Amino acid sequence: MTIKDVAAYCGVSVSTVSRVLNDHPDVKDDVRQRVRQAITECGYVPNNSARALVLSRSTAIGVVSRGVDNPFLSSLIRVLSRQIHQLGYTMVLHQIATQDDEVQAAAVLQREKKLLGVIFLGGRFNYTEQELRQLTVPFVCCTYTNTFGDLDRDAYSSVSIHDEREAEKAVRYLVHHGHRRIAVLLDDPADNSIGQLRFQGYRRALEDCGIDYDPALAVITGDYALSAAYDGVCRLIDSGVGFTALMAISDNLAIAAIKALTDRGLSVPEDCSVIAIDGLDISAYTVPTLTTLCQPAAEMARESVQMLIGLIEGTGVHRHRLVETTLRPGGSVAALADT
Amino acid sequence: MTIKDVAAYCGVSVSTVSRVLNDHPDVKDDVRQRVRQAITECGYVPNNSARALVLSRSTAIGVVSRGVDNPFLSSLIRVLSRQIHQLGYTMVLHQIATQDDEVQAAAVLQREKKLLGVIFLGGRFNYTEQELRQLTVPFVCCTYTNTFGDLDRDAYSSVSIHDEREAEKAVRYLVHHGHRRIAVLLDDPADNSIGQLRFQGYRRALEDCGIDYDPALAVITGDYALSAAYDGVCRLIDSGVGFTALMAISDNLAIAAIKALTDRGLSVPEDCSVIAIDGLDISAYTVPTLTTLCQPAAEMARESVQMLIGLIEGTGVHRHRLVETTLRPGGSVAALADT
Repeated sequence: MTIKDVAAYCGVSVSTVSRVLNDHPDVKDDVRQRVRQAITECGYVPNNSARALVLSRSTAIGVVSRGVDNPFLSSLIRVLSRQIHQLGYTMVLHQIATQDDEVQAAAVLQREKKLLGVIFLGGRFNYTEQELRQLTVPFVCCTYTNTFGDLDRDAYSSVSIHDEREAEKAVRYLVHHGHRRIAVLLDDPADNSIGQLRFQGYRRALEDCGIDYDPALAVITGDYALSAAYDGVCRLIDSGVGFTALMAISDNLAIAAIKALTDRGLSVPEDCSVIAIDGLDISAYTVPTLTTLCQPAAEMARESVQMLIGLIEGTGVHRHRLVETTLRPGGSVAALADT
Repeated sequence: MTIKDVAAYCGVSVSTVSRVLNDHPDVKDDVRQRVRQAITECGYVPNNSARALVLSRSTAIGVVSRGVDNPFLSSLIRVLSRQIHQLGYTMVLHQIATQDDEVQAAAVLQREKKLLGVIFLGGRFNYTEQELRQLTVPFVCCTYTNTFGDLDRDAYSSVSIHDEREAEKAVRYLVHHGHRRIAVLLDDPADNSIGQLRFQGYRRALEDCGIDYDPALAVITGDYALSAAYDGVCRLIDSGVGFTALMAISDNLAIAAIKALTDRGLSVPEDCSVIAIDGLDISAYTVPTLTTLCQPAAEMARESVQMLIGLIEGTGVHRHRLVETTLRPGGSVAALADT
């Protein structure tokens, strides 16, 4: 079905159909009505791509998401998609594997899809000015910021939690419940990313509370695979090193930890308390319900879109928004009985 | 950075750079090497979109996925993405909400992105020939087929499990373990989709085993929300109607069911066995591990891409591939002790 078919269908010229499509005033009302009806009846879909080319204007916003399997990012994508669409833009979603480079992916996408801007989800925290030269459109880092890189703060936008401080908060919550032997479950303490920052928060909380750091209590999984987290916690238990609580840097890792503890005959929270950071829907359905610090996913997604569109439309400047988590109390943390 | 900058950088003409980019033979070896080095040093990204326009050839394959939050579809998208890329095509992913229409979305995407073909994920089972006229490129239904529609089988391709038969298998597994009072947890028995087919399988298995269907044992949630499944199973327990096993039509619903049973003081599997269909990674980490029939997600994704590319390149015809699930034994089903 083309514009020619619509014109033939209602017996008018192609340029008349085009004028109706573009809301030009110089079309008689009855003709306009007839054309609109024909468009509906024929199921005609205007070729916006051709129109965009003619107008030399794209509506494409790239969303480059690293880690297809990350359920926290999925919940953000849902909100981004709705928000971008509602504001009259088109979302071009590009999901890449954790080991792939999002800046390179965005640079290619920018050219191929004529992007107006990019929202990065779950990217690296260590961009250099040099590598970002490839990207000539504005971008917003959603869920992270450039902690380990050398970007000028006026050259990009970000919406994130303060990973270190939030991890500190989680550990303090355990200490407040009487725990001092607190294990930590993370991907990598030197990942230049969430793992490193949340691990720093764990260390700082211990230090502030006068608790010595014991490397034997750090379970390092290498990635975010459930199986690696499960195996790591099983090894920790089997090692015989004593611990009464565990802080996982993500909900997913915590789910695997609860499973490992339970399978080894330990009760959560009676024998071991578990806390995490993220706030996934699914972690409200573990047995027991996971106690976690929830990131405000919807707010982060909405804010990212607003920032980017402000930059695209020239009404905003680069900003950095820090958001806070909210404790979702579950059943996985208990006070340690005095002995 | 444009092709002009690269040409200026190494002191050759734009057409020479272009010849190098397109692997033309009429470039001297030393010039070719100099240009290639300049491209690397300048970090130049060729504008494939412009090239595609010039060549009037797109490489875009649309993946229209209904239900952003569906973790089973996320695992398929990961494989689709890798496979499409490896075969030299570009994946244009469009995720829509469950209540949105994927055919309409694909028709718009086809025009705007010059799609060569479409893979639908998690779509409706009741397409009509009429509505599919909007789509003029070949398409493959991945995870479902046109059971309730009127499409000519030679006009589309599909890769799916036999939903009715697989549900029957799950229920027979429970019956084989001595259960006769078997509840079913589903979105909607008349959804013209997975819910309806798997419910039919449940009914057929009961009938074949000489067990009367009891409507009081059907928990209908309206959608796939975890909270609705949780509430529904709580109501079932509170109603006092006796049951010793439950078949959930998806892993996610089963996770909520296990949580509801546990929160109401019932042990899984001692007081109630639970089985599902899907095979999510996460459901291997429930307490107890969910017993489920796993769909071969990677195989389904790979097969869909191969089918579609065969159609695009003119080497294949429309086909319908039925795949089988594999039982992943967990700890959520136990034999009912004779009384």
